[in-house]
Amino acid sequence: MQPWKTRSRTRILNHGPYLTVENHTVELPDGRIISEWPWVITPDYVNVLAVTERDEFLCFRQVKYGVEGASLAPVGGYIEPDEDPLDAAKRELMEETGYEASDWIDLGSYRVCGNRGFAMAYLYLAREARYVTEPDADDLEEQKLLRLSRSEVEAALEAAEFKALPWVTVVALALHFMRERAAGTP
Amino acid sequence: MQPWKTRSRTRILNHGPYLTVENHTVELPDGRIISEWPWVITPDYVNVLAVTERDEFLCFRQVKYGVEGASLAPVGGYIEPDEDPLDAAKRELMEETGYEASDWIDLGSYRVCGNRGFAMAYLYLAREARYVTEPDADDLEEQKLLRLSRSEVEAALEAAEFKALPWVTVVALALHFMRERAAGTP
Repeated sequence: MQPWKTRSRTRILNHGPYLTVENHTVELPDGRIISEWPWVITPDYVNVLAVTERDEFLCFRQVKYGVEGASLAPVGGYIEPDEDPLDAAKRELMEETGYEASDWIDLGSYRVCGNRGFAMAYLYLAREARYVTEPDADDLEEQKLLRLSRSEVEAALEAAEFKALPWVTVVALALHFMRERAAGTP
Repeated sequence: MQPWKTRSRTRILNHGPYLTVENHTVELPDGRIISEWPWVITPDYVNVLAVTERDEFLCFRQVKYGVEGASLAPVGGYIEPDEDPLDAAKRELMEETGYEASDWIDLGSYRVCGNRGFAMAYLYLAREARYVTEPDADDLEEQKLLRLSRSEVEAALEAAEFKALPWVTVVALALHFMRERAAGTP
């Protein structure tokens, strides 16, 4: 199974740090050429489901411009230029909640859109989180930090109360990991 | 917690059916105005994890332009204009695999990006899938249909072999639902 090849790329929209759009000329494995394949570039980001030493799940009730109504959300944010994704995850946890965690589990990195790109999402489970300082987030959005039980998080997952795709993903993967680890699977 | 309000919107890129970009003027709850908030519109889509009457999970091994190397992927595709998301899910399952399913579980709809929009992803678990006809997909990508066991799907999930965000999401949510349902929780 052969990959598609990028033959050329032309920037068609430069909107500053949060959005660039390119046209790619793409060659398929059978030689066909697609001359105007749109490719969207927004910053790569992290999302973190953090669990405290007391098994409290740190989540926000939050409004976001792209999400209808208030939503539950995990910690998250953009990765700075040249920043390591795990460092970004630790930074966002500290800035948004004032917690730091001693046990970090990499839940994988995922392309947000298989066709247009968009960004890479780096997902983490952070365990043994401890409160160490005042949070210092510079986000524009209103958000309220909640400490939920595992059963509350599971109920919210099932009710689709984590309303953005990366948020529901990190929660579902973290719960899967915790359940498998508890069951003794490697 | 008040939502942000859209005061005006201007189209700044029209790339045909697969991509439109707008600038929004946004008003925050405290009255502040953000005058150039980029908003990206791509088609809404469905992803379906389909399980046969024999507990085989229908997945593809597939290449996608935006994904590095071959990936495992569920059934999925764009929703046609004015098409109901569940109808789109049934159509994509039929076109891509030749299967139809009698038991459909809605796993929720999610905004792909809480900031920029991108699309809505509608996710489904389809059970009791039966092979009824030759598949008839018009996708450009090479793909090979696999019938995986549940333990193979779980291992692939844990190894991050579903490499795009909506794919890993529908798999994780479907497994969560099946486990909860089996455990007798409502």
